Parts: sequence; C-alpha cells; structure tokens
Amino acid sequence: MKIEVVQSVLKADRDTARRTRARLDAAGVVAFNVMSAPGSGKTSLLERTIPALGPDRRSAVLVGDLQTTRDAERLGRSGAQVVQINTGRGCHLSAEQVAEGLDRLDVSALSFVFIENVGNMVCPAGRDLGEHLRVVLLSIPEGDDKVAKYPTLFQPADVILLTKTDLLGVLDYDAGRVRDDLSRINTAAPLIETSVKTGQGMAEWLTWLAARRPGPEP
Amino acid sequence: MKIEVVQSVLKADRDTARRTRARLDAAGVVAFNVMSAPGSGKTSLLERTIPALGPDRRSAVLVGDLQTTRDAERLGRSGAQVVQINTGRGCHLSAEQVAEGLDRLDVSALSFVFIENVGNMVCPAGRDLGEHLRVVLLSIPEGDDKVAKYPTLFQPADVILLTKTDLLGVLDYDAGRVRDDLSRINTAAPLIETSVKTGQGMAEWLTWLAARRPGPEP
Repeated sequence: MKIEVVQSVLKADRDTARRTRARLDAAGVVAFNVMSAPGSGKTSLLERTIPALGPDRRSAVLVGDLQTTRDAERLGRSGAQVVQINTGRGCHLSAEQVAEGLDRLDVSALSFVFIENVGNMVCPAGRDLGEHLRVVLLSIPEGDDKVAKYPTLFQPADVILLTKTDLLGVLDYDAGRVRDDLSRINTAAPLIETSVKTGQGMAEWLTWLAARRPGPEP
Repeated sequence: MKIEVVQSVLKADRDTARRTRARLDAAGVVAFNVMSAPGSGKTSLLERTIPALGPDRRSAVLVGDLQTTRDAERLGRSGAQVVQINTGRGCHLSAEQVAEGLDRLDVSALSFVFIENVGNMVCPAGRDLGEHLRVVLLSIPEGDDKVAKYPTLFQPADVILLTKTDLLGVLDYDAGRVRDDLSRINTAAPLIETSVKTGQGMAEWLTWLAARRPGPEP
C-alpha cells in the first residue's frame, strides 16, 4: 500500500514536470536545474552570469532553500526576476514547487530560467523538475573524491562546473582524479573550471549557455 | 494509510536507536553522530583525532557513504576499527544500519564510536541513530550563511566545529555572522575553530572529547 501511494506521488510529479517543460517550450524558454552541495557557489555563479548574458537573454531564478530569503535578496540585485521557494525540512525542490514558482514569473519575457536547487548532493539527483538541462557544480574545497561518491548527481549532468579554482594553489587537489572518475560515468558533459573571483572559465560557461538558445553573442 | 506505515517505520527506528544507546551504555562507550555537508572535513578530522586520543581511549568509526570505501580506507590507516556502510541512494544513515555496523565491532574494547554520517545538511538532522552526542562541522569555504539556512542541523548540535580555518585569510568570511546566527538557535554548544592543516583548535576539541569520558589526559 505504501508503495502504491509513493508511486502515484511520483507519477503526479512526472506529469507536472512534463507540463512545465511543454509550457516553457511554448514560450521559447530554456530551463536549467542547478545542483550542488551547500556552499559550492550556485548563487555567486548566477549573480555573475545573469548580468553577463546581456539584455537579449533575460533570466529568472527560482531559488530553493530550507529557510531564509538571503539568496533571493542577493539575486534580486543582479536584475533577474527571482522567486524564493522555502522547502522547510525538504532536501530538494519538487516539480510542483517549480510550477507554482513559474506562475509568479512573466515567462513570456524570458530566455532562461535557472532553478537553483536546495544545496544537497543526494536528494535533488534524478528528480525531474521540468528543466531542459542539468548544471552541476563541484567546488575545489569539497575535495577531489566527490564524483565517485555521488555518481547519481554527476552521471546525468549536462555540464559540470568546477568552482572556486582560485583555491587550487592553496589546497591539495587532484583535478585529474575528478576527470578520471567522470570518464567512467559521464563523458558527454563538458567540465569547465571556473572562479567567480578571478573570472576564470566564465567566458566558456557563457558561451555554453548562449548556445542553448541561439541569438546575439553574449 | 501512508502515514501509518511511515509512523511505524519511525517508531521501529526510535526503538532501535534506544537499544543501541543502552548497549553502548552497558559497555561504557560514548557515541558521536558526526554530521556536515559533503567535503567539510569529517574524515580528515577523525584521521587526526583518533591517534591523538591515545591508547587509553580506543575508537571505532562507522562511516556512511552512498558509494565507495575511500573513507574507510583512509580511516583504517589511523588505527581505528572501521566499518563502511554504503547507503546506495540514501541521504543519511539509519539506526538499523548503525546497529548492524556495531555488530561488526568489538565494542567491549572501545571508549568512543564516531558515526560519520552521509555528507548532507538536511537528511541526517533530527534522526536518532543511538548516539549520545551530535558533532556538527561547518567548513569556512561553505560560506558564513549556513547556520541560518540549515537550523535543523545546528539547533540540536552538542558541539560545532568551524573547520578549514586556515582559509580564513584567503576567503571573505564573517565568523561573527555564524556566531550571531547561532546565538538565536543554540547557545549551549561550544563553537571550536579548527584546522587539521595548522592544528588550530585540535587541543580544545580533544579536551572537549576527553571530558565526555573521563580518564587519563589525552
């Protein structure tokens, strides 16, 4: 009986995600599910990314957190439309929450929607929110062993950003180990080394993003 | 019906945790549930802690990870008895897994059991595994906003370790903000600033630990 109930919840979730994607497709909007551990730099990356995309590619952010509206306040200053979704004790966003969040945006004015998931390497993995593409961040200080430990997050990623590379000189870190572990589970996604502090990799990331929705150069 | 099933699972879990604690009490063993985000330094801390506790306080580690035995291999070199528990897709250890892990240890030879939970700031919070005390780590590179964002983890902590303080000079970080957020939800737990790289705070942490089970000075 428990299994039946859980399966019907999962089916409702999948249907909601499908409807969200159809709605975004009709509006010509590309949605990204942005996932990582807490403190990997999702908000900092989006703060830099959204203004750099320029006026021809307008973005909105749906940002998930257990509590607080701190990330929404930060992102609001970047000029994006922002909706904060507080999950309480929930360790991931749901398709339903994303659909409700979209209701509060002017989708017709947008090129991109970034869904900043709850900081977590386990729960968000494999949950379809209605996005088109999955962006996974891994920060240098988290250590070079995380791809092997959390394959369910990295395997379906469409792009992987190694963040805070400005700390590479300060920490013992073997980026080769990350590439080696990735080569076993995901050879399709590009791995981009980035730092919002030094600007490293931002051009490559912006080019990757812009190619998801062709238009003028960012 | 769903709620009934879930509640009976939770009750079985609580009963298991209670039995574990009684069993540890009978053996004079103190157990710690060690929790943090992925990559905050749980394994590195235990690698340093266990040999430093000396021969009069022998320790074992139950280490939870979705996949891999990397942490168990690292900890095995520290001289501790180690059991790796792979949770597959599970975002936290369960009381049942901990009870089974203890079956594989010689508990009578121990002073301390460290339960290194799955790297996650949400799922392990509030789940009783049969431990006596909760140790929560927060690493500097994760950012100074995490106490407010994850209160369910920090509120019931018995001690909080701010880790990787060697990065304080490199990163923008406001430790006062952490203390301020903590003052609203948990004033009982000491906050110890630590670095396994420089050794900062290790003496204070070892003294705190040793006081949990009186005996010769560590």
